[in-house]
Amino acid sequence: MNIAVLGTGMVGQALAGRLDELGHSVVVGTRDPEATLARTEPDGMGNPAFSAWQADHQGVTLATFAEAAAGADLVVNATSGVVALDVLGLAGADNLAGKPLIDISNPLDFSNGFPPTLFVKDSDSLGEQIQRTFPATKVVKTLNTLTASLMVDPKSLGATSTIFVSGDDAEAKSTVVALLASFGHDDIIDLGALETARGTEMLLPVWLRLMGTLGTGNFNFKIVR
Amino acid sequence: MNIAVLGTGMVGQALAGRLDELGHSVVVGTRDPEATLARTEPDGMGNPAFSAWQADHQGVTLATFAEAAAGADLVVNATSGVVALDVLGLAGADNLAGKPLIDISNPLDFSNGFPPTLFVKDSDSLGEQIQRTFPATKVVKTLNTLTASLMVDPKSLGATSTIFVSGDDAEAKSTVVALLASFGHDDIIDLGALETARGTEMLLPVWLRLMGTLGTGNFNFKIVR
Repeated sequence: MNIAVLGTGMVGQALAGRLDELGHSVVVGTRDPEATLARTEPDGMGNPAFSAWQADHQGVTLATFAEAAAGADLVVNATSGVVALDVLGLAGADNLAGKPLIDISNPLDFSNGFPPTLFVKDSDSLGEQIQRTFPATKVVKTLNTLTASLMVDPKSLGATSTIFVSGDDAEAKSTVVALLASFGHDDIIDLGALETARGTEMLLPVWLRLMGTLGTGNFNFKIVR
Repeated sequence: MNIAVLGTGMVGQALAGRLDELGHSVVVGTRDPEATLARTEPDGMGNPAFSAWQADHQGVTLATFAEAAAGADLVVNATSGVVALDVLGLAGADNLAGKPLIDISNPLDFSNGFPPTLFVKDSDSLGEQIQRTFPATKVVKTLNTLTASLMVDPKSLGATSTIFVSGDDAEAKSTVVALLASFGHDDIIDLGALETARGTEMLLPVWLRLMGTLGTGNFNFKIVR
């Protein structure tokens, strides 16, 4: 599949690398490719600069958000929640129309420090905001409830854990579920309509506190039943 | 231990029955004991009336909220979130002072139908509201993330799952953790200060949607790590 991954950070790198490894044709989208490639320092979290990462992933190309989305059959939103709508606007509604969009972003507001609060919640969600803004796109919310390395390699935890899927388009969800299964996810719960993303986005507050308590982000929710 | 369970519904019955079975002296608190005993019909969810339940649990006595709290070493808030502060006010700040309070309530607002929203969240929690209102009480938030039968018998799921604890008083938390262990909880995560109850109360939106998807409340979160 031709896949655009919007975002060059830890989540974008994890998704792009894994999708490339699985044989997909992957273009990473960024605001300004030259500026992205010019950065050589690790980010504030110690993650390698995109240029260093790309040296190990030469099959993955870099383009503007719009170029990446234009050539894609499926688009992954791997941006921070606070810029997600802006970035998708730059990708362009026409370039996103008719396509499944995997939305991994969370509506985290760090303006009052850590832990962040959510800038949309409970009676709405970021996934739904994106869907309303791009009505011709088929938004599927998933992968927003675990750390980047586990998104693409859940089996590295050594025990089965759960991934949630929310979306209004059954065919898009089924495409996304197949991708998730190819990553190694073997307990995929389809929560139903995109409205259910309210529930999974609201997992972030406990996720962040668990990360503090456990001293690692290397954990995941399992729904035992 | 002398334990007061405030609330005669499904959660109160589950806690009172299990604590009685474990040898504790249990008094259930209600607004008006005569009115509670006069009701003979099951509630709207099909749970037995308290009088029918009590016939099978004759070691458990019924009293007003204030009488129940006055005689207790430890108090359990098993009321609906929307009435929790009122009920605790009726129990009386003096009767609650110095005691551990297990707060199971969730801030669910059903006024706009199902699924409910949360009337406090994200930058505050119901557990913290209770703590601020009753500063001499040692609030421990726990058991609010699973269905009543699993609160008191988690092993019935057939696999280990996780229970969370939040509170500002270390000694009260340790008393509560011992009670949880006596129920069969064997993966107890102490998230830290009561502030972390913001995280566990915000699990309810996904819990409610999972109940819809799975067609049962008989499941629990496990933190796989």
